[in-house]
Amino acid sequence: MTEGSGGTIGVGMVGHAFMGAVHSHAWRTAHRFFDLPMVPHLAVLGGRDLGRTKAAAAKYGWASVQTDWRELVASPDVQIVDICTPGDSHCEIAIAALAAGKHVLCEKPLANTVAEAEQMAAAAAEAATRGVRSMVAFNYRRVPALAYARKLIEDGRLGEIRHVRALYLQDWLSDEQAPMTWRLRKDKAGSGSLGDLGAHIVDATQYLVGDTLTGVSALTNTFVHKRPTEGGGDLDDVTVDDAAVFFGRFGNGAVATYEATRFALGQKNGMSVEINGSLGSLRFGFESMNELYFFDGSQPADEAGFRRILVTEPTHPYVGAWWPPGHLLGYEHTFTHEVVDLVRAIADGTDPVPSFADGLQVQRVLEAVEQSAENGSSWTEITK
Amino acid sequence: MTEGSGGTIGVGMVGHAFMGAVHSHAWRTAHRFFDLPMVPHLAVLGGRDLGRTKAAAAKYGWASVQTDWRELVASPDVQIVDICTPGDSHCEIAIAALAAGKHVLCEKPLANTVAEAEQMAAAAAEAATRGVRSMVAFNYRRVPALAYARKLIEDGRLGEIRHVRALYLQDWLSDEQAPMTWRLRKDKAGSGSLGDLGAHIVDATQYLVGDTLTGVSALTNTFVHKRPTEGGGDLDDVTVDDAAVFFGRFGNGAVATYEATRFALGQKNGMSVEINGSLGSLRFGFESMNELYFFDGSQPADEAGFRRILVTEPTHPYVGAWWPPGHLLGYEHTFTHEVVDLVRAIADGTDPVPSFADGLQVQRVLEAVEQSAENGSSWTEITK
Amino acid sequence: MTEGSGGTIGVGMVGHAFMGAVHSHAWRTAHRFFDLPMVPHLAVLGGRDLGRTKAAAAKYGWASVQTDWRELVASPDVQIVDICTPGDSHCEIAIAALAAGKHVLCEKPLANTVAEAEQMAAAAAEAATRGVRSMVAFNYRRVPALAYARKLIEDGRLGEIRHVRALYLQDWLSDEQAPMTWRLRKDKAGSGSLGDLGAHIVDATQYLVGDTLTGVSALTNTFVHKRPTEGGGDLDDVTVDDAAVFFGRFGNGAVATYEATRFALGQKNGMSVEINGSLGSLRFGFESMNELYFFDGSQPADEAGFRRILVTEPTHPYVGAWWPPGHLLGYEHTFTHEVVDLVRAIADGTDPVPSFADGLQVQRVLEAVEQSAENGSSWTEITK
Amino acid sequence: MTEGSGGTIGVGMVGHAFMGAVHSHAWRTAHRFFDLPMVPHLAVLGGRDLGRTKAAAAKYGWASVQTDWRELVASPDVQIVDICTPGDSHCEIAIAALAAGKHVLCEKPLANTVAEAEQMAAAAAEAATRGVRSMVAFNYRRVPALAYARKLIEDGRLGEIRHVRALYLQDWLSDEQAPMTWRLRKDKAGSGSLGDLGAHIVDATQYLVGDTLTGVSALTNTFVHKRPTEGGGDLDDVTVDDAAVFFGRFGNGAVATYEATRFALGQKNGMSVEINGSLGSLRFGFESMNELYFFDGSQPADEAGFRRILVTEPTHPYVGAWWPPGHLLGYEHTFTHEVVDLVRAIADGTDPVPSFADGLQVQRVLEAVEQSAENGSSWTEITK
Repeated sequence: MTEGSGGTIGVGMVGHAFMGAVHSHAWRTAHRFFDLPMVPHLAVLGGRDLGRTKAAAAKYGWASVQTDWRELVASPDVQIVDICTPGDSHCEIAIAALAAGKHVLCEKPLANTVAEAEQMAAAAAEAATRGVRSMVAFNYRRVPALAYARKLIEDGRLGEIRHVRALYLQDWLSDEQAPMTWRLRKDKAGSGSLGDLGAHIVDATQYLVGDTLTGVSALTNTFVHKRPTEGGGDLDDVTVDDAAVFFGRFGNGAVATYEATRFALGQKNGMSVEINGSLGSLRFGFESMNELYFFDGSQPADEAGFRRILVTEPTHPYVGAWWPPGHLLGYEHTFTHEVVDLVRAIADGTDPVPSFADGLQVQRVLEAVEQSAENGSSWTEITK
Repeated sequence: MTEGSGGTIGVGMVGHAFMGAVHSHAWRTAHRFFDLPMVPHLAVLGGRDLGRTKAAAAKYGWASVQTDWRELVASPDVQIVDICTPGDSHCEIAIAALAAGKHVLCEKPLANTVAEAEQMAAAAAEAATRGVRSMVAFNYRRVPALAYARKLIEDGRLGEIRHVRALYLQDWLSDEQAPMTWRLRKDKAGSGSLGDLGAHIVDATQYLVGDTLTGVSALTNTFVHKRPTEGGGDLDDVTVDDAAVFFGRFGNGAVATYEATRFALGQKNGMSVEINGSLGSLRFGFESMNELYFFDGSQPADEAGFRRILVTEPTHPYVGAWWPPGHLLGYEHTFTHEVVDLVRAIADGTDPVPSFADGLQVQRVLEAVEQSAENGSSWTEITK
Repeated sequence: MTEGSGGTIGVGMVGHAFMGAVHSHAWRTAHRFFDLPMVPHLAVLGGRDLGRTKAAAAKYGWASVQTDWRELVASPDVQIVDICTPGDSHCEIAIAALAAGKHVLCEKPLANTVAEAEQMAAAAAEAATRGVRSMVAFNYRRVPALAYARKLIEDGRLGEIRHVRALYLQDWLSDEQAPMTWRLRKDKAGSGSLGDLGAHIVDATQYLVGDTLTGVSALTNTFVHKRPTEGGGDLDDVTVDDAAVFFGRFGNGAVATYEATRFALGQKNGMSVEINGSLGSLRFGFESMNELYFFDGSQPADEAGFRRILVTEPTHPYVGAWWPPGHLLGYEHTFTHEVVDLVRAIADGTDPVPSFADGLQVQRVLEAVEQSAENGSSWTEITK
Repeated sequence: MTEGSGGTIGVGMVGHAFMGAVHSHAWRTAHRFFDLPMVPHLAVLGGRDLGRTKAAAAKYGWASVQTDWRELVASPDVQIVDICTPGDSHCEIAIAALAAGKHVLCEKPLANTVAEAEQMAAAAAEAATRGVRSMVAFNYRRVPALAYARKLIEDGRLGEIRHVRALYLQDWLSDEQAPMTWRLRKDKAGSGSLGDLGAHIVDATQYLVGDTLTGVSALTNTFVHKRPTEGGGDLDDVTVDDAAVFFGRFGNGAVATYEATRFALGQKNGMSVEINGSLGSLRFGFESMNELYFFDGSQPADEAGFRRILVTEPTHPYVGAWWPPGHLLGYEHTFTHEVVDLVRAIADGTDPVPSFADGLQVQRVLEAVEQSAENGSSWTEITK
């Protein structure tokens, strides 16, 4: 089956944990609500353990399984490779897939190191010349409220951007007895809260502002250095940051502050952004993801105020495909929108965003954050 | 195929508008996240227009179509009949399906009149003796926050219930030029905001309190009496209420107030409930459907306060099947939960709730509201 | 000393409990922030117990005391009589003061019965012909956010008013062991939550809408019938309502709902109002009294939303006399504003509002509420 | 008159602009609500312009005026000198007053430079040995919600503090045409948003945490470099920061972030603090200054949540002197509480807080922020 058949496009997905579950839902659901030029076919699910992979395939609706990701990439049933594994394997799989002429959707962060991300971006650029598409899965761009926020900024409603402040606060490590996971091992995850949470807010703010950071100053911290191993046995070393705080400057001069932590007790998925411009301001919080707060500075002072826009109108990005006003969308919808945009880009022959180059640039910001933190918080330029 | 096959259970759904779309999603999705004893098979979609029904079936994933609902009911592929049509046809379809030994899920309100609802409840009671199950689709009971609220009340955390106040505010008729729809015709819809919105808050509050209303006093109002016809032509008569306000008393003595309207400008889906008891209080708003506000009166006065419980913990009702804490669920999840509970009840051989008897009781409340409104707002007992 | 002296105007205040404390503050403070044509002089404080009255006078800054209110009224040092006693004495004191040519500020509700209120309104009308002014102390009209809301409505920003919903929720009687007070005795207080809390929201909504209620339907309830006496001894009878719920219709056709209770656990001073019109909506809550939420229906649907106007701009009513934007005002400021408006009206020779006639009209609404409640909630017209 | 007279204590205040107005209110009001051992007497108001000072004295209730602050300090009617002038004169006046044996209340920031603050702290320490008291006017410590927050932290309810984040956002300079003021001149104000706003959040967070910052990394920015002069004439140079962002570390290891700006459009007085500990979290926003949000980590996960404590209970700090629960306090109350604590400390013979030493320490933090900003944001230790 080929994508030109007018009918379906085959997907092979590697990994079937949390991200695998939500990506599967997106692949199954996108064409039920959106008019897609090609219907995704959940062709092959890849995983290391055959039994668990088969169980996941049955639950999530995949037609077949593979324990060797190279076979999955090579499968004639697969036109899109969706990478949902930890960051240490992104590079190898993505480059192999692109080389094989398969479109790639890769979970964030793009890679664990800038060096890997550079290879991936180079491979993606080369593949694009062959019509092979690639996208990094910064799903927060597909929250309707944030896509609408981008539109307001693009339309000039905020004027010149002066301040950006972004937080990503969780609390699942507050308990010192919470056990180890791969997310706390540097060799698997690359970094801790920085890559897991910080990457999202760096991408989201750069997307919203329409510009990139030029330098940062940072502090990282590990509050709990040893934790029980997954099985409950001896203590094991936490080798990543528990929290990262940094500020930076955008190319356009805006001043930005960031904080990513898993120790903010009471904050479950507290991703939030506020942007202040010369003409207006915006506020967003992911725990109220259907809402956007907009202050329109052009209104008379005595009737101005942040207004709560419930981003559920048919004219809002992505929303027309779903429910009437006031009926909320949830977390998984962002992935469904991601699939919609990717499949449409493939069909249209355009390069989807965020590209691997965008993912590389985020990686460079994260690297600068780590360098600054290691270097007495001193100002660190972001390599272009 | 039969439900005893250990595998699937066939569904036939009548109607494919807004409710049809969201029910289809639920039937497709429930077994992807929940362990179900039988996997729903989207066997037959019923609709009056063949072309539009075929298009809907393709989009929503139904295996076949039927333009005669009697054929759909009779189909050997159908074990569950899901009724998503306007209220004037519920009675006939449901009774035929139950007679044919098919389980029934019926959209709310159960019927347009008490007389019809009585026939349906009687048919359901009789069918139950044959192991045939029926449920009315008051989906708000399946909002995790409301299911959790019910649990708190059941556990005695609110003490004796004294006050109930419920609103269901929308604004899509605020514009006097908004055109006619079947929802504004008494012969189709039975009533206006009362049956459409009021039915939800009557059911939700009775569910939460665990008791029923014994009497009401009411006022209904039509703000705009004539509207352009759907096609845009001449003016047509609005024959239902635009707004209904009423108060009542529960069997346990609690005082309750209700308001349903489509003229509350700025309110998109403003369903909200507050309950005050002798030991605690609860507040919920559907536009923030993942949150429940709880005031625990047993706390010392200087540290007490309504607390925002983000109902996304794995221990909250239904939530364990979905995402990590802080990742929101949306509107359609309530229907998925409904399907889960119905399929499990069928497999377990138990009667699901809300039953047709529950739907009839709500209908009696709505009738009492209309009678009171027609009778100078005087106190009107609810027939048992 | 006379008010024409260009300098001060003497005040005599009867009562020195909660209302006396806050009125004293207002009389002391008004000219420190507002330019007043005459400076209030706290001349005489009246109270029944000499020792306690002297102590209160010293604390609150009154120049002298009187245990006989008739002497206070007659005092040449007194040009304004401020009545802060329970409702059963308002009528006698006010009429005597007006007869003596003293301006009167009377706490709400104006009286305990319509009959008394009628006498007072008649006396006030007669006194006005002699240049003697009178005002009833519905202080919520002087919350800047509500005064600004009135302006928005007056300017037509809400269009035709369709819905009014008002709550006044407190919880200080939730505890069944809370002792008796004069507020729970019908002979002293006239009614319970209805006169104490309901009077405020009836006045506030009529003020905001700029129209009056024409009829109501009501339910009142007493949850706890016996309470410990103030001294802690035997049980005593509660002879007023604990809660009152009612709906009504304004002259202009708007539908309105009201609830007043002291049993809403967790609600400390939960006075709130929402008004929906054909062009816009407003929301206010007294526990966030510096904020007004405005939905402007003239905005495009995708950028419309309730906006939080922080009513602390110098252009907002009363605010210019206080602090820079964002610096909050509190409860007592409403009384200071009341004093400002009253003193200015006296100096200008105009009749201040709300007048005793306005207070009488509120009393008629309260009476209709009680009649409806006693009469099976049946619709009860408000006497003009 | 002397403070030992059992009666009054004379106050001389230098400066009568914004701070002078609110301090006057506090001096006039404190004893009307709190039992004070001595009643403040508003003896002398100091100002440079005789006419304007006389007008202010009349409006605010001061008994006499002085254009030479040295005379005011020397006056036998003055036992307390209250310094409400710009920062460049604090040092000279405070040291003279302390030398003269007068207690001193000094507005924040304590001085424009560390060198001045050191002299003042030394003078205050020496004066304390003579029983002469001094206090710096960080009024936010006297917001009841923050005083209560401090109590919760002191009681161990938050456990080990891990994160502090504090913002002070205003927008009055967003407009590039807003004219110059002394607050934008380095020689008068010392710094811009840093000293004006940043000083408050540095003091408030150190007070709450009960520990001090050990180092910071910072970025400051001036968005608009030239502005119209006050009179409206030519452009003049802005010589201070418009915004300052910094992060730091507390002695106990907590990671802290700060932002102070006057360019956050839509934020009027957006001072906010969030603190996360191992057992609980707190959130506060000054635009809702009567509320404190508390997350108690000891509660079961499914019923935990940030709760809104309305800090208006009689058991809350300072609140018992004011109104019943739910009746809000405003901005000026914080100054009244300041006066209460100062007068009581004087009468008790104890040293009030925050002391000049505390003010000096804040000044050292501000200096470290400026040094880091000038030095490539590199980590800068706070001098002890």
